[in-house]
Amino acid sequence: MSERQGRRGGGGRSGKRAARQTTQTKQAAFIDRKIPYFELLSDEALEQIEYNADTVLEEIGIDFRDDPEALQILKEGGADVQGERVRFPRGLCRSLIQQHAPSEFTQHARNPERSTVIGGKRTVLVPAYGPPFVRDLDQGRRYASIEDFRNFVKLAYMSNGLHHSGGTVCEPVDLPVNKRHFDMVYSHLKYSDKPFMGSVTHPERAQDTLEMAKLVFGEEFVKDNTVCTSLINANSPMTFDDTMLGSLKVYARNMQATVISPFILAGAMSPVTIAGTATQILAEAMAGMAFAQMVRPGAPVVFGTFASAVSMQSGAPTFGVPEPSLVLYTAANLARRLGVPFRSGGGLCASKLPDAQAAYEAANTLQTAALAGVNFMLHTAGWLEGGLVMSYEKFVMDMDQANMMSVLLSGVDISENGLAMDALREVGPGQHFLGSAHTQANFENAFYRSILADSNSFEQWVEEGQMDASQRANKLWKKMLAEYEAPPLDPAIDEALLDFVARRKSEFPDRDY
Amino acid sequence: MSERQGRRGGGGRSGKRAARQTTQTKQAAFIDRKIPYFELLSDEALEQIEYNADTVLEEIGIDFRDDPEALQILKEGGADVQGERVRFPRGLCRSLIQQHAPSEFTQHARNPERSTVIGGKRTVLVPAYGPPFVRDLDQGRRYASIEDFRNFVKLAYMSNGLHHSGGTVCEPVDLPVNKRHFDMVYSHLKYSDKPFMGSVTHPERAQDTLEMAKLVFGEEFVKDNTVCTSLINANSPMTFDDTMLGSLKVYARNMQATVISPFILAGAMSPVTIAGTATQILAEAMAGMAFAQMVRPGAPVVFGTFASAVSMQSGAPTFGVPEPSLVLYTAANLARRLGVPFRSGGGLCASKLPDAQAAYEAANTLQTAALAGVNFMLHTAGWLEGGLVMSYEKFVMDMDQANMMSVLLSGVDISENGLAMDALREVGPGQHFLGSAHTQANFENAFYRSILADSNSFEQWVEEGQMDASQRANKLWKKMLAEYEAPPLDPAIDEALLDFVARRKSEFPDRDY
Repeated sequence: MSERQGRRGGGGRSGKRAARQTTQTKQAAFIDRKIPYFELLSDEALEQIEYNADTVLEEIGIDFRDDPEALQILKEGGADVQGERVRFPRGLCRSLIQQHAPSEFTQHARNPERSTVIGGKRTVLVPAYGPPFVRDLDQGRRYASIEDFRNFVKLAYMSNGLHHSGGTVCEPVDLPVNKRHFDMVYSHLKYSDKPFMGSVTHPERAQDTLEMAKLVFGEEFVKDNTVCTSLINANSPMTFDDTMLGSLKVYARNMQATVISPFILAGAMSPVTIAGTATQILAEAMAGMAFAQMVRPGAPVVFGTFASAVSMQSGAPTFGVPEPSLVLYTAANLARRLGVPFRSGGGLCASKLPDAQAAYEAANTLQTAALAGVNFMLHTAGWLEGGLVMSYEKFVMDMDQANMMSVLLSGVDISENGLAMDALREVGPGQHFLGSAHTQANFENAFYRSILADSNSFEQWVEEGQMDASQRANKLWKKMLAEYEAPPLDPAIDEALLDFVARRKSEFPDRDY
Repeated sequence: MSERQGRRGGGGRSGKRAARQTTQTKQAAFIDRKIPYFELLSDEALEQIEYNADTVLEEIGIDFRDDPEALQILKEGGADVQGERVRFPRGLCRSLIQQHAPSEFTQHARNPERSTVIGGKRTVLVPAYGPPFVRDLDQGRRYASIEDFRNFVKLAYMSNGLHHSGGTVCEPVDLPVNKRHFDMVYSHLKYSDKPFMGSVTHPERAQDTLEMAKLVFGEEFVKDNTVCTSLINANSPMTFDDTMLGSLKVYARNMQATVISPFILAGAMSPVTIAGTATQILAEAMAGMAFAQMVRPGAPVVFGTFASAVSMQSGAPTFGVPEPSLVLYTAANLARRLGVPFRSGGGLCASKLPDAQAAYEAANTLQTAALAGVNFMLHTAGWLEGGLVMSYEKFVMDMDQANMMSVLLSGVDISENGLAMDALREVGPGQHFLGSAHTQANFENAFYRSILADSNSFEQWVEEGQMDASQRANKLWKKMLAEYEAPPLDPAIDEALLDFVARRKSEFPDRDY
C-alpha cells in the first residue's frame, strides 16, 4: 500500500485566509520556548572546551587593534597587555561576565507591545543583515537601494513571525557610506514599531543612532533602558578592530546591547574541526563580552556566533551542511553555561536563487538554531548567496518558516484536551475525526497554516497556473507591500527625527567610506 | 559590518570530485549514531500517553477486518474478540512485544557488506515508497513505468547515503497489478545488492517475494534470517485489513521483518492534537506488533509512523510543518521506551515541483527524523507531491541530504586532534588556518562536500550557466545512470530468478487488482 495523498477540493479559501494572517496586527514580541534544548556534548566535553578557551585567552591572547583607549581599559580591567596583544588571566573573562552581564534583558520598542526580551527561554527572530545586493524575480540581482531597505523594514513589520526590525537589512548603496545610517535608522523608527539594531560602522554613527533613539524614546528613558541591540563582529581569528571596538564602547557606555560575534569561516578563520572552532568562538566571544563589562558593568551583551564551513577545495563558504550545525549546537550550550543570551543565524544559504538549494540550506540552519536554543536569531529571513543578496522572494519564504518556529517551540499540549481521549472514544475504529466534537472545538488553532506552501491537489495547482514557490512568494511580497500601513508615529517626533537627520547630514561632506 | 562571503576562485575540481564521490564503491551499511536523541516530553507525559494507548486497546479496541484466521490467532493470544473488534487486556501488547520482539535485527543483503542492522543506535536511509507517478525536468509528470523503477533502484544502489534499495520506489503502472511484484523484486535483486522490501499487496505476492529471495540467499538461510523488511500499514484509525494482515502473516511466519505503520493524516484519521495522535499511533503500532508476535514469537517488527497534518481548511495533507515533527519526536521516544526499532519518513513534502517548498518541507522532516532517532528512514529520497510522485531531480537532492546525515549523527570529535589546540597555538590572532599543519593533516575529511550545492562565486555561477538546483540535479542523475554498472550476480541465480518469474507469470491471467 502506498503512502500518498488523496484528492480533495477546496484550498482557495485557505490561501486567502493565510494571506490575511501575515498582516494581522496581533503579534507576539518573542517566542516563549516550551521544549528542551538539544544538547550534543557531555559536561566533561564542554568543560574541556571551556578550559581550552581559557588557555587561548591566557596563553595565546586576543589582538585589540588601533584602539589605545581599549587597551587601557583592558589593562585596568586586569588583562596582560603587550602591544596590542591582550592576554586574560584564567577565569577573568568568565567571572566578569557572570558577575555583571545580565542573563536576559528587555529591548524596548517604540510600541511597548513589541518590546522584546532577549535571553532565557525566549527566541527573537530577526531579518537578515548586511547584503549589498537585492534580488527579485522581476528585476534579478542588483545593488540595494534605500527603497529596498524601506521595503524590507515594511515586510518585517508586517510579518507575524519576525519579532525585530533588524539592522542593515540591506546596504542602501545609493546613499553615501558615511550618511546612510541616518536613513537606515530613520526607516526602522518610521516604518516599523518593532525593536531595531543600530549602526556599527563608526563610533559617531553609533552615537547618531542613540541620538535618534532619544528623540523617540526620550533622553531619560534611553539612559537606563536598552532600545537597540547592535552587531559587533570579531575579526576572527582572535582579533577586534577599532571600528567595532569604538561602536561597542558607545553602546555599552549607554547601556545599549551589543552582540559580540566571532565571524568564522571554519577552516580559514578557525581550525578545521568542530571542537577547535567552538573553542575559538568561546574565547573570542568571552573576550569581547568581558571587555564590554569593563567598559560598563551590567551592559547587556549577547554571545554571538556566525559559523560557516569553508570548502577545502574551492575556499567557498558553505551553509546548511552538518559541520556548522554541530558548531552551533555546541556554542549554544557554551553560552547557556556562561549564562548569557545567545545569537546565531537562521536562514543561511549559499544559493544564488530562492530555489531548492536555498531552502535545504536555510531549513537545515533554522531547525538547528531553533533546537540549539538561539535567543537572537539574526538572518532569519531573506538571506541568499552567502549574505551578499537580500531576496524578496526568500524573505517571505523564510517568514513562513519563522511563523512555524513558534509552533515547534511550543511543544506538545498534554492537557486533557491535548490528550484527546474523548475524541478517540467518540470516533473509534474505521471512522474519521473531521466531524467529531473535539475536532470542531479545536480546528481553528489546530495545525500551522502555511502562507506560501501549495498543498492542494495537482489538478488545482495546474488550474492555478503551476506556480513554483518563488512565483507564489513574488505575489505575496507585492501584495504585502501594497497593503502596508505605517504604524502611528507622533508627527512632532517624526519632524524632530527629520530635522536631526537634515542637520547632521549638512555638517560634513559625503564620503564613500 | 556585513556577514557575507568573499570572492574566491576554483570550485570546478570540487564539483568533479564530488560527482565521483556519489558512485564510489565503499559505502557504509548504516549510520552508527554518536549523538543523543532529541526528546521533547517528560517521563510523566510519556507514561500518560502509554497509559492512554493501553486504554484505547482495552476499551475501544482495534478492528481486524476480513481475516478469520487473524481473529483466531488474536483470541488464542489472549485478546477479547467480539466480531472483528479486538480488545487487548491492559499491558498484553507491551509484554508480548517486550518479551519476544528483537530490539534490533540484521537485514541481510545479497552482498554481505551491505547487510544492515535495524534498531538501536543505527539509522538506515531508504528511498521513497509508493508513488504512481514520476517527474523529471525533461518530460514533466507522467505515470511511472518499470523502466523508472529500475532507474531508481540503480540510483539508490549508487548512492553513498542510502543504505537500502527500498520497496515500491515507484509503481510500475505499465505492468499488470497482480504481476508487477515479480519485476519489482527482480529489479531489486538484479540491479542492486542492497537490502530491499517485499511485496505486501497480497499474501501470495509476499510468498513470491520469499521464493525469489530463497533463490538468491538459499532456502536454509532464509528460514532463520531476515532478508526483507516490508511495510504493513494500518488503516487508521484503529483498523487493519485482510491484505495487510495476510502479508504480515506470511512474513512473520518466515522470520521476515515487518514495519507496522499507522498511516495518519492527523485531524482526519486521528485526533487533531499531537498527544492524541501519538496515543493512537502507539495503540495501533502495538496492536500490529503484538499480533506479529502471536503469529511467530521473535519475528522482527519495526514501530512505524507516518504522520501528516491535514489542513483544516482544504483537507489537504501538509508536510514539513511543526505538528508532524512534534508527533515524530514523541513517537520515536515511545518506540525507544518499548524497545523496538522505529520507522518514520525522511524527505516528505507536498510540493508539486523540486523547488523551495519541496526543500523546506523535506529538510524540516529529515532533520526532525534524524534527531528524533528514526532507525528505518523510509521516503528519504525522491518523494514529491504528498507521495504521488517520485522525482528524479529531488531524488538526487535528497541523496545529498542523506549523505549529510552520517556527518551530523557522528557528532563532535573531542580527541586531541578534534580539539585542535595545536592549530590555535600555531596560527594565532589575525592569521589564517588554511596553510597550517593541522588543516593540512585534516582537510581531506574536513567538512561535507555537497554533490549538488553551488557555493561558488556569483560570477562563476553565471559563467557556468546560472543553473538552479533542479537543473544541476537533472545533470547529476543522468550522469549517474550513464555511469551505472550492475553489481555482480551469479548467472545461474539470475537464470533461476528469471525462470521463476516466467513460470509464475504464466500460471494466472493478468489482472488490474
